[in-house]
This record gives sequence, C-alpha cells and structure tokens, in this order.
Amino acid sequence: MEYLAELPDIQFVDVIEALGTVAFAISGIRLASAKRFDWFGAVIVGFVTAIGGGTMRDVLLDVTPFWMQSSLYIWCTLFAFLIVAFFRRLLVHLDNTIFWFDCIGLGLFVVVGYEKTMMLGYPMWVCVFMAMITGIVGGIVRDMLINEIPIIFTQELYAVACIIGGIIFGILIYFGVGLVLTEVITAVSVVIIRILATKFGWKLPNLKDD
Amino acid sequence: MEYLAELPDIQFVDVIEALGTVAFAISGIRLASAKRFDWFGAVIVGFVTAIGGGTMRDVLLDVTPFWMQSSLYIWCTLFAFLIVAFFRRLLVHLDNTIFWFDCIGLGLFVVVGYEKTMMLGYPMWVCVFMAMITGIVGGIVRDMLINEIPIIFTQELYAVACIIGGIIFGILIYFGVGLVLTEVITAVSVVIIRILATKFGWKLPNLKDD
Amino acid sequence: MEYLAELPDIQFVDVIEALGTVAFAISGIRLASAKRFDWFGAVIVGFVTAIGGGTMRDVLLDVTPFWMQSSLYIWCTLFAFLIVAFFRRLLVHLDNTIFWFDCIGLGLFVVVGYEKTMMLGYPMWVCVFMAMITGIVGGIVRDMLINEIPIIFTQELYAVACIIGGIIFGILIYFGVGLVLTEVITAVSVVIIRILATKFGWKLPNLKDD
Repeated sequence: MEYLAELPDIQFVDVIEALGTVAFAISGIRLASAKRFDWFGAVIVGFVTAIGGGTMRDVLLDVTPFWMQSSLYIWCTLFAFLIVAFFRRLLVHLDNTIFWFDCIGLGLFVVVGYEKTMMLGYPMWVCVFMAMITGIVGGIVRDMLINEIPIIFTQELYAVACIIGGIIFGILIYFGVGLVLTEVITAVSVVIIRILATKFGWKLPNLKDD
Repeated sequence: MEYLAELPDIQFVDVIEALGTVAFAISGIRLASAKRFDWFGAVIVGFVTAIGGGTMRDVLLDVTPFWMQSSLYIWCTLFAFLIVAFFRRLLVHLDNTIFWFDCIGLGLFVVVGYEKTMMLGYPMWVCVFMAMITGIVGGIVRDMLINEIPIIFTQELYAVACIIGGIIFGILIYFGVGLVLTEVITAVSVVIIRILATKFGWKLPNLKDD
Repeated sequence: MEYLAELPDIQFVDVIEALGTVAFAISGIRLASAKRFDWFGAVIVGFVTAIGGGTMRDVLLDVTPFWMQSSLYIWCTLFAFLIVAFFRRLLVHLDNTIFWFDCIGLGLFVVVGYEKTMMLGYPMWVCVFMAMITGIVGGIVRDMLINEIPIIFTQELYAVACIIGGIIFGILIYFGVGLVLTEVITAVSVVIIRILATKFGWKLPNLKDD
C-alpha cells in the first residue's frame, strides 16, 4: 500500500507543522503582549495567528477545520505561551531561530494548503490561492486583533513567496514529479524566497500618489 | 416522550436567550452610537455583537447559522435599538440590570455552545472551545468594527468564565448528571464567576516587558 | 427550454457583474494605496472588497464561494489594479464613471444575493438579509483591513439601498412578476436610491449623546 509507505513522511511533516505552529503562535503572543493583552488574550491571538489561515481555507473548502480534529494546535499554542512567558529576554537572542521556524512553517503551510485543495479536485489557480490564504491569513487577523494595519500589506515579501511556492507545486505536479519531492521542493523554495527577501530587504513598490 | 417533557424548559431557555440577545445587542448599539455610527450602523453592530459568536461556532461546525432559522434575533436587536433610542438617559441607571442580562446571556450562550457541539459528536475540548467562541466572538467583532482593541483581551475576566463553564458542563455530563441540571449549574456558574470577577476587579496578568 | 431562453440575460448579467467587480476592486485598491499598501496588499484589499460580501453570503448559505468557481473575479481585480496603476491621475476625472459602475455593481450584487438565497428555499427576510450582506460586507472588510471605521456605518446611505432593493425583489416575486423583470426593477431601484442619496446627501441620523 503506497499510502502506508508514505506514513513516515507524514510523521516528519507533523513535527515540522508543530514547529511552524509554535513559531506562528510566538509571533502572535509577543505582539499581543506588547499591546498589554492579558494572558488569555495573548494565547488567543497566538492561536489565531497559527490556525487562522488554515481555518479560512477549510471554511472556504467546506471541510472541518483541521484544528478541530486534533488538539495538537492548542498544545503548541500553550507551549509557545510558556516559552514567551519564561524565556522572554532570551527570545531576543533567539530571533534568528524563531525566524527560521517561521519560514519553515510558512513553507509547510503552503504545501498543506495546496495539497488539501488539490485533493478536493479544484483547478490549479484555486490551489495557489488557498496555499496563499493558508500562509497569510493568520498574520492578517493577528494584526487586525491588535488594531494595526496588517504588516504583510506594507512591509514584507511574504505572500509573494506563498504564491510562487504554490505555482512551483502546481508546475511540478503537472510534469509528473512525485508528491513527496514536490512537497520538499515547494517548501524549500518558499523558505529560500522568504530568507532572501528578508536578507536583501526586497519589497514590492506601492501606488502612492506623489 | 422525554423530549416533549423537556419542552417547557426549552421555552424558558428561549426567554433567557432573548434577554441575553437584547443585552448583548444593547452593548453593541451603545458603543457604536458613542462612535457616531448612524442608526443602521448601530443596529448592525448590535446584531453582530449578539449573533457573532454563535455564527462563528455554526460556521466552524458546518451547520446553518442559528439566526437564519428564526427571525427572533433580528427582532431582539431592533427592540434593543428602540430601548437605547428612547431610554438612553434612563439606561445609565439601568446599567446594573443590563449587566445582569448580559451575565445571564453569557451563561446561556456557553450552555448552547457546548450542547450544540456535543450533539454533533465532538470531543470535550472542542465543546469547551465552542462554548468559549459562542460567548466571546460577538464582543471581539464588535470592538473590531468600532476600531478598538477587543476589551476582553485586556480588561475583563470574560473568556475564562466561559472556559470554566464549559469544563463544568463537560464534567457533569461525564459523571452522568442530567442534561437540564447540567445546563442550570453551568449557566449559574458562569454568571457567578463573571459577577465576582467584576465585583472584585479580578483580572489576568499580562506579559508586558519591563 | 425556458432556461436556455434566458441564457442571453445571464450573459448580459455577467458583463454587469464584471463591471461591478472592477468598480468595487478599484475602490479597495485606491484606499489601500493611499495607506501605502504595496502592490500585493492593494490587490488583496481590492479583491476582498469585490468578493467579500458574496463570500460571506456563500459561507453562511453553506455553498461553494462563487469566486472559487470562475477565475473571472481575480482577472477583474488585476484589471482594476492596472487601471489604478496606469491611469491614476486620470481616475480623478473618472470618479463619476466609477461611481456609476459602483452603483450598478451594487444593484446587481443585491439581485444575485437575493436570488441565490431564494433558490435555496429560505424565507424572504433571510433573502433580504443576504442581499444586504452581498452588497455591504466587502466594503466593511476593506475598511477593517485599512484600519478605519467602516464608512457605511457613519456616512453613506448604502445598506438601506440594499435592504429596500431586497424588499422590492421579494414583493415583486410574491405578486408573480417574472424573474427577469424583477431583477431589472430591483437593480434599477438600488441604483436610483444610491444616486439620489449621494446627490442630496441623504444620511441616517445617529444616537449621539448630547
């Protein structure tokens, strides 16, 4: 059974997904705490940051939101809260590590978003769109909850990485590349684009009237 | 038929639910009016405050949103609008009464949220989560619409009351307590926690850096 | 086959829908650009403005969101972006034209929202509500994304036009008027109400305390 043969990969993916969830949750918890949200508020913002994108994807696809089928995501969020609570000062020195988790998490979110949509039979452009939604909506809702303009709309080359990742996934599948290899190449591409964009300060221009 | 025998309780619950809806809607209408929203804007914010939590719950559970099956909630909102419009000055003296309705409404929203999720076969932690969502999301969306940071994230011990209420519901059902008794104990617990928290100014700490 | 006989109308409606989508997207793209959103951010805000209302309607009705079934709406949004990018200065002189498209788009959104809900067997008041949601939610989410209080809650007689349009649709159908005629009368009514309201500065009062 091919499906069983792939189980080890799925379990490796689970670890990555948990790390990505923790990284996303940490970003929400830190930003909420900076706005003096209480413990509960910080945990909720962290949770929404981590699961918001996948939840919107699942609602649009009309399937049960993924986090309602496993309590993993709530535990990851609580774990992220403990990290922020106890190692706050240390976290400043770990910014690089967290950024890495965040990038890897994003790469994985794109893969999961594309694949889940593809499995439901949607055409490629919907899959790319859902890959992007999975990657960016959590951060958008986070910024709306803390009453800021979503940072991905003005600062970071974040969504473009998701879109390019999604397109790569679609092209590889179209040319018959195997699923696991496609997943790895896609995720790595997203990570590389995001790291390069951050390192070199790549940004999209805006349409400002001047 | 046991179901029929419970009908009187259901009708009593309907009255409580209507009162809770009116109380939630009043809070939305007053806050929106303070920001100079027009009549329509105030009614919409009031409506969203009252039905937002249950709507998100029903969308996540993939069932028809409750307020699309009965116009009761729209009438309650319009009634709340008339109260605010005609008795605005009087309402200041009624703050205590409205607070009571709000507490009772919250208690009931928790019960309804838990029960509806349980009936669909979800495990306890999803039920507790949905009980909380039913109780808090309306107020969160209200505050987002009036462009403020959601008050429940910084000020009030609101969501914790929902969570404790949900846990109590789950424990009582687990130990075989009857449904009606479980409902009453849960709702009363939520009301008591919320009242005590307000009276004694209980708050959760935050993770502020300093 | 009566259905086939109506095809030409459907295609005419498609053109109107595309124009309305472009007009809604332009409003989102311009407001986002004024807040220095980058290209991507502006496109997303434009897209959400155009499809937000219909998406919320479809999620509440538990049907597949309309824009996931045709890439038309994404192309319309990209087209709107090109218009804003290349003809920005010109657009100021075209405000009247864009306002017309926006009004016609709103009229059509109300018709589509009512009809889709009616086809699913909901009572009239749900249809009117969904017609309103189709018309207003895109603009509300647009304003939340750019961190402003939704303008339709304080300034414009926008939602009232949707509600009146929805009621007109319901009454005409009730009295046996044909579907196409009902659609036309409803859309024209919404357009006229919106234009008159803008021309004469009609506004709803608010409940301000003073």
